[in-house]
Amino acid sequence: MLAAAMIAPTALAQTAVPAVVEDFRPSTLNQPGQSYPQVNSQGFVRFKITAPEARSVKVSLGLGGRGGTVLAKAADGSWTGTSEGPLDPGFHYYHLTVDGGTFNDPGTLNFYGSTRWESGIEIPADDAEFYALKAVPHGHVEQILFPSPSTQTQRRAFVYTPPGYDAGKPTRYPVLYLQHGWGEDETAWSNQGHANLIMDNLIASGRTRPFIIVMTYGMTNDIRPGSPGGLARFDIKPFQTVLVNELIPYVDAHFRTLADQRHRAMAGLSMGGFETKLIAPKHLDTFAYIGLLSGGTMSLNDVDKTPGYRERVKLTFVSFGSRELDGGRTGPPGGPRVDPRANADALKKAGINSVFYVSPGTGHEFLSWRRSLREMAPLLFKD
Amino acid sequence: MLAAAMIAPTALAQTAVPAVVEDFRPSTLNQPGQSYPQVNSQGFVRFKITAPEARSVKVSLGLGGRGGTVLAKAADGSWTGTSEGPLDPGFHYYHLTVDGGTFNDPGTLNFYGSTRWESGIEIPADDAEFYALKAVPHGHVEQILFPSPSTQTQRRAFVYTPPGYDAGKPTRYPVLYLQHGWGEDETAWSNQGHANLIMDNLIASGRTRPFIIVMTYGMTNDIRPGSPGGLARFDIKPFQTVLVNELIPYVDAHFRTLADQRHRAMAGLSMGGFETKLIAPKHLDTFAYIGLLSGGTMSLNDVDKTPGYRERVKLTFVSFGSRELDGGRTGPPGGPRVDPRANADALKKAGINSVFYVSPGTGHEFLSWRRSLREMAPLLFKD
Repeated sequence: MLAAAMIAPTALAQTAVPAVVEDFRPSTLNQPGQSYPQVNSQGFVRFKITAPEARSVKVSLGLGGRGGTVLAKAADGSWTGTSEGPLDPGFHYYHLTVDGGTFNDPGTLNFYGSTRWESGIEIPADDAEFYALKAVPHGHVEQILFPSPSTQTQRRAFVYTPPGYDAGKPTRYPVLYLQHGWGEDETAWSNQGHANLIMDNLIASGRTRPFIIVMTYGMTNDIRPGSPGGLARFDIKPFQTVLVNELIPYVDAHFRTLADQRHRAMAGLSMGGFETKLIAPKHLDTFAYIGLLSGGTMSLNDVDKTPGYRERVKLTFVSFGSRELDGGRTGPPGGPRVDPRANADALKKAGINSVFYVSPGTGHEFLSWRRSLREMAPLLFKD
Repeated sequence: MLAAAMIAPTALAQTAVPAVVEDFRPSTLNQPGQSYPQVNSQGFVRFKITAPEARSVKVSLGLGGRGGTVLAKAADGSWTGTSEGPLDPGFHYYHLTVDGGTFNDPGTLNFYGSTRWESGIEIPADDAEFYALKAVPHGHVEQILFPSPSTQTQRRAFVYTPPGYDAGKPTRYPVLYLQHGWGEDETAWSNQGHANLIMDNLIASGRTRPFIIVMTYGMTNDIRPGSPGGLARFDIKPFQTVLVNELIPYVDAHFRTLADQRHRAMAGLSMGGFETKLIAPKHLDTFAYIGLLSGGTMSLNDVDKTPGYRERVKLTFVSFGSRELDGGRTGPPGGPRVDPRANADALKKAGINSVFYVSPGTGHEFLSWRRSLREMAPLLFKD
C-alpha cells in the first residue's frame, strides 16, 4: 500500500493531467431542467446517475483506450465520476453500462449515431460562436416525405431553406446535398452538426451566398465500419437511385431551386464522403461541387480516370480533423495510408480548384465537420 | 400454498384476462433494427431488456393501478415480461426502473412527455389508417426559429404546410395554432400525434380544406399537474404575449397565410386546451375557431361572460376520450365535476355552433387527440 501510494503521484505527473478546476456547469445538450452531466472550463466531464440498487455504472466516454469512466457510488445512492482528463472540444456520443445493460444517460438529449439513439454531450469550443443560436434571421429546416418508387416507401429528408426563402419572392437558390456518416441518419447534420445555425450565421455576416441544403438517409447502416471489404462490398446503386432519380427531382419540383449542374453540390462526412466520391464523379451532369469531410481524398489519378472532371467540377473540397492524421497521413487501421494534402496539392498543380482544410485539435467528430461546413460553404456556387 | 393455488384460478377468471395469443411483433415505434418491445393482436406488450447483473427491472406500463410490469430474469441474462392485460389502442409513454434508477427502453424511440424524453409504444388501433404514412402527397413540417423580444430568446415552433403549399402558387391558407399538453413540448403533435399524416390523409381524401398548423412550446412545464391551485396560479400572460404578439406576426410575415380572424383557429390538448380557453375568448379579433381536446369545456356561462363570443366564434369544438368520462362527467379528482356534453348541448340550443366528440375506448392519451384532430379539421375554416 505504501509503495503504491508513493508511485501514484509520479504516474499522475507523467500523464500530465491538470488539476480539475471546480467550475462545472450543465452541458448545453442536457434535457430541460437536468443538471447532469456537467462540463468544466478545461473540458472535463462529470456524470451523476441515480440507480441506488445498481452494482456498477460505467460511462463509455472518458480517455481513449481506457474504456470510459467508471462511476462510484455516493452516500446518497447516486453514482458519480469525472473523466480522467479533458475531452476534445465539440460533440461526443456516449452511453451508460448499468449492471451490464446499455442505457442512455437520462440527463441528456439523444442523438442518432452507431445505429441507435445515443446520449450526447457538448464540450464548449473556443470558436463555438459560429454554430451558436444568435439573434439573426433564421432559415427553416423542413421535414419532407418524398415518394421513392425504387424502395416502395415514402422516404424522409430534411431541407434547410435560408432566411428570405419564404418571403414569397421569386428568387431561386443553389442546392447542397449533404450526407451523414455511418450509424447516423438524416437528423445528424441538423441535430449534431447545427448546419442550419452555421448557415444562418454565415449568411448574416455576408460570408456565404444563401443556398438550400438537403439531407437524407444514406442507407449505410448495414455496412460494418472497419470490417475488411465492408465498403468494397457496399452497393451504392440503391442510394444513388434514391438520390439522383427520386430526391433531386422532388426537390427541384417543390422548392425554388436553380435546377442545373453548376448550382448543385454533393458533400458528406465519413461514409457520406465515400458516397459522395462514388456518386458525384459519375454524375457530372448533376453536380459541380464535391466535398469529402473525413471521408477519403481525391487523387490526380481519381481525376484522370473520370471523364469530364477537369472541365465540369468547380471545386474539390477535402477536410479532416487534425487527430485523424498521423504524420499527415490517413487511412484505415492496417490498410494503405495516403497523404490527403499531397493529393490536394497535386490537383491544384494540375489546374484543378482544390481546397484542403484541417480542423485543429479535433478527431473523427462533429466539430471537425461543423468547421468543414463553415470553410466549404463560402466556396460553393461562385457563379 | 394449497389454498392459494385453489383461489388463484377463480381470481384470474374474475379479472377476465384473456389467454395471450402468441403473435407478437415489434412495436412500430422501435428504433431501427430493434425487435423489442413487441405488441400482439390483442394489445398485450412484451418487453425484453438486457442487463445481466441487474437486481430488478420494472416497466412503468402495464395495468392501471398495479404499477406496471415487473420483468423476470431469463436464462440468457435478459429480463422479460408481458403486460398483465391488453393496453388501450394508440400511443403510450413509459420508462424502465433498473435497480432503482429511471432509464428509457433502449429498444424504442423517445418522445417528450412528463418533462423528459420517454420511451414510447404504439398499440395498433382498428382505425389506424387515418394516421398512417401512405402514398399520398405529403405536406412539410418546418422547424422555425422566431425572435421573441419578451423572453429575449429565439424560440422554436413547427409549422405544417399542406401539400401544394410549396409549389410556388400564390394561394394563401388559414392557420390552426395547436398546443401540446403539460410535460410535452412543440414536438408532440408531430411525433406522438402524427398531425401531419392525419392532415395529409384528410386532404388526399378531400375531407378537409388544406390549412397550415403551427405548434410551439406552451411554457406549461413549471405547472405541476394535479396540484391544487396549480392551474389557478398559472400566469397565461408570458405565453399569450409570445403567441399573439410574436409568433402570429412572424408566421403571417413568413408564410402565405390568410391573416385575418376568420381564417385563424386555436386548439390544444389537455393543458393546451386550458391555454386555448384562457387566450382565444379574450382575443376574438385574432381567433374565430376554438378547440378544447381533453382540456376543459365551454359552458353557456363562459360564453355569456365573453363579449362578442356569440357573434365572432364560428365553432366551439370539445372532445374527450371515453375513459376520461365517469358517468358522462369529467373534472379533476376530488374537484367539481361537469357534464361536457350538456355544456355543448346548451351552446347548441343557444344557437352557437358547438360540436362535442368522444373517442371510443381511449383515455387521456394521444389516440383520443389524433381522432379529435380528424373530427375537428373538416369543421374549420368553412368560409
